Amino acid sequence: MGKKAIGIDLGGTAIKGAIIDENGICGGVTRVPTEAEGGGRRIMDNILSLIGKLAESGGGAGEFIGVGIGTPGFVDADGVILNGGANLPGWTGMQVYAPIAERFGLRASAANDVTSVALAELMFGAGRGVQNMVCFALGTGVGGGIVTNGRLYKGGHGMAGEIGHIVVETDGEPCPCGQRGCVERYASATGIVKAAVDFAKSEGCKSDFAKLVHENPGEVTSKLVYEYVAKNDELALKVHERACDMLGRAVGIIINTFSPDRVVLGGGVMMAGSVVLEAVKKYAARHCWPEIFKLCEIVPAQMGEDSGVLGAGALALEEFG
Amino acid sequence: MGKKAIGIDLGGTAIKGAIIDENGICGGVTRVPTEAEGGGRRIMDNILSLIGKLAESGGGAGEFIGVGIGTPGFVDADGVILNGGANLPGWTGMQVYAPIAERFGLRASAANDVTSVALAELMFGAGRGVQNMVCFALGTGVGGGIVTNGRLYKGGHGMAGEIGHIVVETDGEPCPCGQRGCVERYASATGIVKAAVDFAKSEGCKSDFAKLVHENPGEVTSKLVYEYVAKNDELALKVHERACDMLGRAVGIIINTFSPDRVVLGGGVMMAGSVVLEAVKKYAARHCWPEIFKLCEIVPAQMGEDSGVLGAGALALEEFG
Repeated sequence: MGKKAIGIDLGGTAIKGAIIDENGICGGVTRVPTEAEGGGRRIMDNILSLIGKLAESGGGAGEFIGVGIGTPGFVDADGVILNGGANLPGWTGMQVYAPIAERFGLRASAANDVTSVALAELMFGAGRGVQNMVCFALGTGVGGGIVTNGRLYKGGHGMAGEIGHIVVETDGEPCPCGQRGCVERYASATGIVKAAVDFAKSEGCKSDFAKLVHENPGEVTSKLVYEYVAKNDELALKVHERACDMLGRAVGIIINTFSPDRVVLGGGVMMAGSVVLEAVKKYAARHCWPEIFKLCEIVPAQMGEDSGVLGAGALALEEFG
Repeated sequence: MGKKAIGIDLGGTAIKGAIIDENGICGGVTRVPTEAEGGGRRIMDNILSLIGKLAESGGGAGEFIGVGIGTPGFVDADGVILNGGANLPGWTGMQVYAPIAERFGLRASAANDVTSVALAELMFGAGRGVQNMVCFALGTGVGGGIVTNGRLYKGGHGMAGEIGHIVVETDGEPCPCGQRGCVERYASATGIVKAAVDFAKSEGCKSDFAKLVHENPGEVTSKLVYEYVAKNDELALKVHERACDMLGRAVGIIINTFSPDRVVLGGGVMMAGSVVLEAVKKYAARHCWPEIFKLCEIVPAQMGEDSGVLGAGALALEEFG
């Protein structure tokens, strides 16, 4: 019988949990409310009771090798949350390993939620069979995860993988991180929407999509941009090409630096599919040493909405399995 | 008695060899001519006879755990040289592991020479005691090496660590690699000299150094630039600040991506000392997430002219030790 772990994916509104083994999720995903407004201890209590439910459903805590937790922010080597974020007041500073050990006698391994998804791809998805891989998650922001020599690379303080803050445009768009021109400002859903609104204002473009953006700037989404990309709309194509150019620059930097076997692109923006993938390949090739580029595949992520909880479980399977 | 390895550092004019153990070089460095004009087989023969001499001086091949080789270019997983470079005609395509195994019954591990230096710093120098480290070598070009989880990270095809080709200036200086704005174009000795010549022409600067550059552009070296930096010469300071700004951008990208415990700066340009180190720290801080930056030290390399042969020996100690 294969080893089993409990995976916990902490979000702003819900905590998802599942039993994970070498084949993936066993028996479905359980959700409980985060109750973030209750503060750090309430969040931890809700995580503990979810672990308890899952352990019970799996025959007791003794049946599991450990618990993996994907969380916003970073996790230091001792299991303390750093930069837990504005959506989870009181979460920063919480110690997450000790209460799990006390209550269940189980070891825990926690990491940034987006970073953990790289491990889900490595074990169950687009990264199977490779040793060196970098995942980009293109969502509200741009995050990522790095796998070196077959293992998730967390860095000394759990902070590795902030590839969304690679600067790709000198003196570019200001970023809340304090830099200018971070790839996140261009290739995230947020960046794509902002570009559509900005370009519609400044470029005098008269396309159908430009009119729509003018009239209802608040209703623009990256999904809508890509609906108009499919219609060859001038403004939408311009926004798309810029986002993929900028992302291609960051992918090129990553390939030159890491020479990974694969770069995996995931997150909501990738719902647009091959149009993004092909454009990113085109631009990355221009921003990379050809000799290294040709040894790296750029592929779409395979994990869907359960990638967070799978990645969390994978953290424990990797560390304690 | 500690384990011993033979380290071989292949250069364009000389091959350096030494016996390396956990304390560093035992008994000095031996040099033989590369005889690069003789082609790949001649180079390999010279390496083999140097290994033979060193093995004999150390009590026979049986006393050693293996051979490490630092070489220009890349080395694939099977020991075949890729991109051996214009200075070593016929070196590309050579298989280096098999002849060493046949002749001496010893295993070999080879890697890019600059990448290997990171391992020398990790075992013997500025990287002692850390798990995650990135070295920048600022010489004629800019190279580097990456250490993750306490081990040299070579990538799947021996090509990781090309951090000199991180793009730091959109549409910047053209680079032979095909990109524009690579950090190597600015922060290498070559880039520093070019900036001095270009700025002296274009900026109408009238400083002492500017006059000297105008009169003898062919005699400018990065060392000379830093002699004038020490005199607060306007042109030299301008060149220095730009080089360090550009390098700081690349260091910032590396820190955001890897969250290393240390960034180590070495190579000829670092002979200028703390003036470069302090300026790079200043600029890197501006191009990095503060939370991650504060957990990373930026320090000078400690290995000197024998860093190549130490790194080569360290390859074998790491892999076979």
